[in-house]
Amino acid sequence: MRTITRLKWKRTAAALCIFTVLFTAFALGRANLPGTETANQAEAGQRADTAAVKRPKYIFLFVGDGMSYPQIECTNYWINSEKNGSGMGSAKKNTAVTVENELCFLDFPVTGSARTYSSSSYCTDSAAAATAMATGNKTYSGRINVDKTGKVRYKTIAEQLKEQLGYKIGIVTSANLNHATPAAFYAHRKDRSDYYEIGLELIDSGFDYFGGGSLRKPTGKNKKKTDLYKLARKEGYTVATTREEAEDVTGKNGKVIVVDGDGADSGSLDYEIDRDRGEWALADYVEKGIECLAEDNDRGFFMLVEGGKIDWACHANDAATAVTEVKAFSDAVEPAAEFYKSHPDETLIIVTGDHETSGMMVGSVTTGYDTFLENLSEQKISFQEYDDRYVERYRKKKTGFQRVLKDIRKLFGLVTEAEAGEKAASGVVTDSDDSHPPGVLNGSLVLTDYELQQIKDAWEMTVSSKKKKELSQQEYELYGSYEPLTVTVTHILNQKSGVSFAAYSHSGLPAAVFAQGQGAEAFTGYYDNTDIYKKLAALTGVK
Amino acid sequence: MRTITRLKWKRTAAALCIFTVLFTAFALGRANLPGTETANQAEAGQRADTAAVKRPKYIFLFVGDGMSYPQIECTNYWINSEKNGSGMGSAKKNTAVTVENELCFLDFPVTGSARTYSSSSYCTDSAAAATAMATGNKTYSGRINVDKTGKVRYKTIAEQLKEQLGYKIGIVTSANLNHATPAAFYAHRKDRSDYYEIGLELIDSGFDYFGGGSLRKPTGKNKKKTDLYKLARKEGYTVATTREEAEDVTGKNGKVIVVDGDGADSGSLDYEIDRDRGEWALADYVEKGIECLAEDNDRGFFMLVEGGKIDWACHANDAATAVTEVKAFSDAVEPAAEFYKSHPDETLIIVTGDHETSGMMVGSVTTGYDTFLENLSEQKISFQEYDDRYVERYRKKKTGFQRVLKDIRKLFGLVTEAEAGEKAASGVVTDSDDSHPPGVLNGSLVLTDYELQQIKDAWEMTVSSKKKKELSQQEYELYGSYEPLTVTVTHILNQKSGVSFAAYSHSGLPAAVFAQGQGAEAFTGYYDNTDIYKKLAALTGVK
Repeated sequence: MRTITRLKWKRTAAALCIFTVLFTAFALGRANLPGTETANQAEAGQRADTAAVKRPKYIFLFVGDGMSYPQIECTNYWINSEKNGSGMGSAKKNTAVTVENELCFLDFPVTGSARTYSSSSYCTDSAAAATAMATGNKTYSGRINVDKTGKVRYKTIAEQLKEQLGYKIGIVTSANLNHATPAAFYAHRKDRSDYYEIGLELIDSGFDYFGGGSLRKPTGKNKKKTDLYKLARKEGYTVATTREEAEDVTGKNGKVIVVDGDGADSGSLDYEIDRDRGEWALADYVEKGIECLAEDNDRGFFMLVEGGKIDWACHANDAATAVTEVKAFSDAVEPAAEFYKSHPDETLIIVTGDHETSGMMVGSVTTGYDTFLENLSEQKISFQEYDDRYVERYRKKKTGFQRVLKDIRKLFGLVTEAEAGEKAASGVVTDSDDSHPPGVLNGSLVLTDYELQQIKDAWEMTVSSKKKKELSQQEYELYGSYEPLTVTVTHILNQKSGVSFAAYSHSGLPAAVFAQGQGAEAFTGYYDNTDIYKKLAALTGVK
Repeated sequence: MRTITRLKWKRTAAALCIFTVLFTAFALGRANLPGTETANQAEAGQRADTAAVKRPKYIFLFVGDGMSYPQIECTNYWINSEKNGSGMGSAKKNTAVTVENELCFLDFPVTGSARTYSSSSYCTDSAAAATAMATGNKTYSGRINVDKTGKVRYKTIAEQLKEQLGYKIGIVTSANLNHATPAAFYAHRKDRSDYYEIGLELIDSGFDYFGGGSLRKPTGKNKKKTDLYKLARKEGYTVATTREEAEDVTGKNGKVIVVDGDGADSGSLDYEIDRDRGEWALADYVEKGIECLAEDNDRGFFMLVEGGKIDWACHANDAATAVTEVKAFSDAVEPAAEFYKSHPDETLIIVTGDHETSGMMVGSVTTGYDTFLENLSEQKISFQEYDDRYVERYRKKKTGFQRVLKDIRKLFGLVTEAEAGEKAASGVVTDSDDSHPPGVLNGSLVLTDYELQQIKDAWEMTVSSKKKKELSQQEYELYGSYEPLTVTVTHILNQKSGVSFAAYSHSGLPAAVFAQGQGAEAFTGYYDNTDIYKKLAALTGVK
């Protein structure tokens, strides 16, 4: 399936090539029509004279949910740490840190930032943020393409491109196809949790390709409504729910829905860290989407791709799962970057996020200026999988602390002092370092007495099944709404890796924007997330 | 003194005007020399054909120390919160959040991001970061314009512009003139703490204008060396250390050093939150610098301006002081933005940071998706001033807890439940809100029992003068190397405002870059901090 080679972009050749294409196109536009307004002037909602910059025929909008600068740089540094070997990023090593771009979109020639606040909060939710990008309108958090009152409906860029220009439309996500971000490109609801009704709008959209995580609540909240997939088939969709069916799908099928049918984690795609060999990654859904949309298509297409579970992992303060999700998201951009190489004058790729989640930071109190990001690779399982496969059992069986510690060692690499000798011999544990502040660690995976006690306290809460509403302020600060044992373990591994989170909710950080291709220059600057719609509308001439 | 009107940039007119200027210049360059390489192609160290883009004659490089996207957006949202009134940012209010750009550089037309790692750490220090920007070379943290061995010296962009093009040079900072960031534009030392030797290099530089915080250790570590100011005067510098002397300085004075001579906070400028009426702000030093450098100057000038204490405030997790520092930094950009308006074809302004400090976040565990940033304005004093003027006295006099709480109420707005009735009547305290998770607050300034206990624990540590090296891991996580009482109080006010910090040290976040004017287009993209030097060198033709 993964036939397209996932090329690493090399800075040298690629950057020059991209700039040459961009600026030649730009200069040609000017030469043909001296004095016309350019796309760059079409700031903040002004309509571009579309003659000045050629309309991009193939548009990709990649949205990393919960991803902004911290998630991106942490992931890139983590991959570089892995390559540089254990302990890099520490001044004690007599070697030099070097960094390559390991996420393909970091080499895109144009960048900007998009402010993300919603009408009800400086810390938006995904529904309001996606509404802004899809329609150019601010609304309250929780709304999908309707105004504050819920009565005024907004047309989305995807609907406009389909109706006005005949573009084919693809919607891809690693979360659920009727979750907030993908929904904001076809649905209109006052409440983002109306999954069934959103699913009905998905079918009504007539969009050409839906791929990724399956529909949430396909038979409604009461599980008594007609199955959404059945309705979709009735409306002419080909629905593929197994890998074999998915592989058989081609552009000849017409409208298609290709989903992961295993039902795990609310029907979303598995986290990359948990993904089985042979199971489709987000990139595979993108590749299949390009295959379907490009087939026999002389009008053009628009594809929205959400990396939806970066957000979920960051909410849970699970850094190892988050960085593997960001890498999977970047891998999903690569088929588009390949497509761009064959159609450089006609393709526009935008990579952005909807907001940042949990205030992620490279750096931590306990490691100071040193980082040990390679420690994150000790984690073998997502917080969710650990909850589902292990913690659930601990609770039922009141599993003893020593047994739990054994799992923690195997799955997260954290060891007790008693185990440390053996572990140190394997080269994973680094030496202690006197230059650190008192009580501060240097990347050793050996649990301090304080950390061991934290895990024990959390284990006691978990096996005693203390209810969330009984949490004190201190306990809420420690665990949020997460499983105390799990979030304590990831917090400790994060700290020992040199990564921190400040909270469990979205932050007010602007989204990072990366652009490449036809019209990309319009995306530099510090603007609002509503301007992403406005710039796309100006470039394509829809309204 | 503050004669230049500090204009608010209006998006509409200004953005169009800027784009027109930029792209007209760009198109003219192309029209004159079709087929030549453009500055935008001069990526990653390639030299530009300087004929394609006219060399900027007046260059401003503003560096917010410790400032990246979180500090910028938090400050802008805080100012908007102030304007919108109490409680904005909360979904409970039936009004819509709106946001204007209150920091002038947010309207600059071109943006990028600069990766900041040093040769020894993914979380750089200021010396290595400034070396990268000033010379295009990575080095170990702590080094100033020398390589890892300390033996190879690098020429700085300021030295090159002076030597090769005859530009006048200005260096301005709110920290100390021989502190790492400003030093990296004229000095070359293996150890950034060699303040006296760096001061000697300052004098040797022959640069034209030094303004801001005074020289640290002007008579050396042992206080026995010849006073640096005396040596400077001997070398022909006019030295002004009072406001009256500063106001008398003009471009006719030749080489000048204009410093705040009050000696507070290691001789740096007072934090904006502590600044007395009539005391010069950072903006005043910039204004005076422009006056001096522009006088009778047909060659051009380069000015480095550091907002040096954003970093210090963020290290201490003092959000209120940090946002007022960012605002003062933005105010200091305004004289340059005014200058640009008179010389649009010849001026280039770059605004960036050297790294992010402490993982600042808009959002917090205890406020969830709501923010109450206007609560930050309850704080009337910086952490440093509180330490110096209050906590020092508490320690000496073993001041009682109730007396301390009275100061905390006055200076930070935090009240006990007993005081809350009175305070609530004043409209500061908002109502409690059942929609929040258990133990979670909604912006009320009333201390919970848990918070009151945290302050009491910290007060006990502070008055007992527990040594920093005796801190346990838990205590270090709570207080870092800061005064336990002070940092606990700012942590609580931060949380009640909807702001968090994840640590006490620098993070790996990229720096934000904003550019306006001649050659600005070269600064979009996601690049390395060494590329800031390389782009400036390519635009000006120095090497």
